[in-house]
Amino acid sequence: MSLDPEIAARLKRNADGLVPAIAQQHDTGEVLMMAWMNDEALHLTLTTGRATYWSRSRDRLWVKGDTSGHVQHVKSVALDCDGDTVLLKVDQVGAACHTGDRTCFDAGLLG
Amino acid sequence: MSLDPEIAARLKRNADGLVPAIAQQHDTGEVLMMAWMNDEALHLTLTTGRATYWSRSRDRLWVKGDTSGHVQHVKSVALDCDGDTVLLKVDQVGAACHTGDRTCFDAGLLG
Repeated sequence: MSLDPEIAARLKRNADGLVPAIAQQHDTGEVLMMAWMNDEALHLTLTTGRATYWSRSRDRLWVKGDTSGHVQHVKSVALDCDGDTVLLKVDQVGAACHTGDRTCFDAGLLG
Repeated sequence: MSLDPEIAARLKRNADGLVPAIAQQHDTGEVLMMAWMNDEALHLTLTTGRATYWSRSRDRLWVKGDTSGHVQHVKSVALDCDGDTVLLKVDQVGAACHTGDRTCFDAGLLG
């Protein structure tokens, strides 16, 4: 099984075949993290209900929470006007960030 | 004037010297859009209070709203745990999207 051809035709991937994906907590609106998806990751995200990314550092599919337990249950998936960014609304179990913070932006306030 | 060296040292830019920047409406939590910043765009965003991006299509700095009037007044700027994504909380005047939609994701629900 692969990504719906109608969706695949709308995607504008970068040179590595990836699009950025923003994960947002569906009820509080917190922006949790940004990661990357290839077509297969988007297909799995849409069909399994579990947020799935492409890990650029490990060079493989990454089902969020498979090792940490910090699963993201997908509520909705939207593509932006240019087809080059995905917005996931999810229900995040535990911490989204590998540091243990709820979001990857919690420790990074500038200025 | 250029970007604070401490911030510049934390940034992990892509091969084009850019980082993705997510703009979120500060009070409602809406994710408005995703765009790109180079060091100068981030510096201007932090120091002018107006969200400023690098336009990849026009290959120049882009002060959001300069032509459309759809300005983003910056409330806060955070860097993520890896230093490779910026989250802006803004007060968006009018539509964030060039289509006239409030956000760039309004028309793109998948599945």
